[in-house]
Amino acid sequence: MDQQMEQYANLIVREGVNVQPGQTMVVNAPVQCAAFAQALCRQAYQAGAAEAVVFWSDEVVNKIKLQYASDDVIGDVPQWFVDRATHYVQKGACFVSISANDPELLKDVDPAKMALMSKVTRQALQEYRKYLMTNQGCWCVTAMATAPWAKKVFPGLGEQQAVDKLWQAILQASRADGDDPVGDWSRHVQSMKTRVDKLNAHHFDALHMTGANGTDLRIGLADDHIWCGGREESAKGILFSANIPSEEVFTAPHARRVDGKVVSTMPLIYNGVMIDGFSFTFKDGEVVDFAAREGYDTLKLLLDTDEGSLRIGEVALVPYDSPIRQTGILFYNTLFDENASCHLALGDGYATCIGGEDRTDAALEQKGLNRSLSHVDFMVGAADTRITGIKGDVEIPVFEQGNWVI
Amino acid sequence: MDQQMEQYANLIVREGVNVQPGQTMVVNAPVQCAAFAQALCRQAYQAGAAEAVVFWSDEVVNKIKLQYASDDVIGDVPQWFVDRATHYVQKGACFVSISANDPELLKDVDPAKMALMSKVTRQALQEYRKYLMTNQGCWCVTAMATAPWAKKVFPGLGEQQAVDKLWQAILQASRADGDDPVGDWSRHVQSMKTRVDKLNAHHFDALHMTGANGTDLRIGLADDHIWCGGREESAKGILFSANIPSEEVFTAPHARRVDGKVVSTMPLIYNGVMIDGFSFTFKDGEVVDFAAREGYDTLKLLLDTDEGSLRIGEVALVPYDSPIRQTGILFYNTLFDENASCHLALGDGYATCIGGEDRTDAALEQKGLNRSLSHVDFMVGAADTRITGIKGDVEIPVFEQGNWVI
Repeated sequence: MDQQMEQYANLIVREGVNVQPGQTMVVNAPVQCAAFAQALCRQAYQAGAAEAVVFWSDEVVNKIKLQYASDDVIGDVPQWFVDRATHYVQKGACFVSISANDPELLKDVDPAKMALMSKVTRQALQEYRKYLMTNQGCWCVTAMATAPWAKKVFPGLGEQQAVDKLWQAILQASRADGDDPVGDWSRHVQSMKTRVDKLNAHHFDALHMTGANGTDLRIGLADDHIWCGGREESAKGILFSANIPSEEVFTAPHARRVDGKVVSTMPLIYNGVMIDGFSFTFKDGEVVDFAAREGYDTLKLLLDTDEGSLRIGEVALVPYDSPIRQTGILFYNTLFDENASCHLALGDGYATCIGGEDRTDAALEQKGLNRSLSHVDFMVGAADTRITGIKGDVEIPVFEQGNWVI
Repeated sequence: MDQQMEQYANLIVREGVNVQPGQTMVVNAPVQCAAFAQALCRQAYQAGAAEAVVFWSDEVVNKIKLQYASDDVIGDVPQWFVDRATHYVQKGACFVSISANDPELLKDVDPAKMALMSKVTRQALQEYRKYLMTNQGCWCVTAMATAPWAKKVFPGLGEQQAVDKLWQAILQASRADGDDPVGDWSRHVQSMKTRVDKLNAHHFDALHMTGANGTDLRIGLADDHIWCGGREESAKGILFSANIPSEEVFTAPHARRVDGKVVSTMPLIYNGVMIDGFSFTFKDGEVVDFAAREGYDTLKLLLDTDEGSLRIGEVALVPYDSPIRQTGILFYNTLFDENASCHLALGDGYATCIGGEDRTDAALEQKGLNRSLSHVDFMVGAADTRITGIKGDVEIPVFEQGNWVI
């Protein structure tokens, strides 16, 4: 396992953030992921990094704060916390984030307190978030198996067995369980580029998504939208993979041109609370009605974040035969579950999904890019998902029976 | 164990830093000590703290940095790191530090790189250090059993057994293994106060320490020195215990009036390197000669930190029948080992060990207080240690055969 973890860390360093000689790498790591954070640091230096820094966090300490602290304390983000992120942004650092949340940790915590903490943190880190969302620097979200997460995914197994099995699933999903993870990943992202190039050649105005569960949604695409997937390119021309694993091909919808109904096909964990069996009705891009069998209040708080959290900022296509979906595992973690299914995201869109040199915020919004403090993916793909691409009067099949046909 | 850890955390919060209602508590915690840090946060809020914050660190990530990074990178402390400490100092926070180092982790690391990291960190945190060293705020150093440390202390045991045994030793040494840790600790520090009061009544000019191992040292005491031990009092009048466990009664020697030879009686771990079988010869307060059977180069680097690291800043009396010495365990950790033996510290002295209202740095140095970026304790007490207190021509026995006789 130690050897496999080092290999996985090497994949993240080389293909994930593509550390450059003399660069600084920052790792956002839960304290429970120390072993993997250490491996990432070792691999970064071996790849030529000048420095590897870890921003530690602990969701349990955060939970205790949410349980006991006043809104004044929860709502106050100290300046050093902002300056720390800015310091490394100004150095041109690359950023790895290890995702390993206990899916059920926060289920009994007041959703209003969680929403407050989440909102003030996002606001405080706006500069840092912009640096990442606009690919000024390279970044990668990855994962590590921890005991509370593994026990949720495999409730029937003992703790060590569950952790081992989750690690294997993470490595398999990341194509990092063979002898040459860097080579395997490289081939995978090349093949995604082929799909991306085809979609970009079509210049669709909109997509039309339907399914037997009641989904019937017309998703207008942003003007000059660009399909992305697999590797991205930073402002400095460095190729990187922002998510490992990743199976999605995605672009920016038009924030004011989404109409119809979409029904979720997998549960969503938001701020540690499960939202399940939910649907949204859109008119002119905005959610005008919604329902949820479970987690309604949390979903309502998410939609109330700001004006942009009522609109979608991302549409992502993932085939039903994706290897992650084929594992049959529900990971309770967006990094994995979003790569098992077509999905949309409420909230902020990626500026990199809009073409053209004119990249002021106003120009991006003019082209249809959504703006929000939040960005939350939710799954809408199923075995019978049908998607067509619309260009003027022409409709071209993109997905049939849940899989690519373009 | 969970229940005992919560009780121990409660002792640290109530008697260690004595958290006040509405105060902020900061915990300096290795990532390996997350469970104890979480317990401290819970107990702090339950004691009325407004906020509990954790500064996480990982000695393994530090080691990797020492192994790979350049001196420029190691020597550069970012401003946010300084500002973070200052932020909580300005809030009047109390600070808990969990000590749990792997005693042998850094043994193969270049001592010059360690000395550089240690020096720039201390320099950067001078304001924070002054806040603690002058008791502007309450602080407490405590410990948690971790696997690498426990395996060094009990090399013959399996990992879990070793950790359990080290935890029991920590709790026993801290008088926290009974039903009423807060009451037991309170009685202990009361009894130390009796010794302190007797020594303060004598107003000794100097101590004379001798032993069969070759120690023959005259330790001049600082003008207006005050003996301390057990509870201390912060500038705001809050009583706290700066070390848990603690068995020592200590004061400030005169930085320019120490003469003779002192021979160590226990190994010293400095920057992860063991220094053993060492001795110093002092003249007019300064180390003019030294030797070490093991770790000579590291000892030399320690003495080279600055001018003040060649002089002593603390003399502490601990009886040979101390319960920690009686466990017979060598903890390889100063917090414990210093409470098993009389000891001295090279480097910075405690301003709180000097009386009088006039507390400018110049005035403190005039009275004999030593000043340095470092403060490193080393053990000199043995079963036959004899100490007399000198006042003019009079010599009064303080220790005979290693124990109190005053």
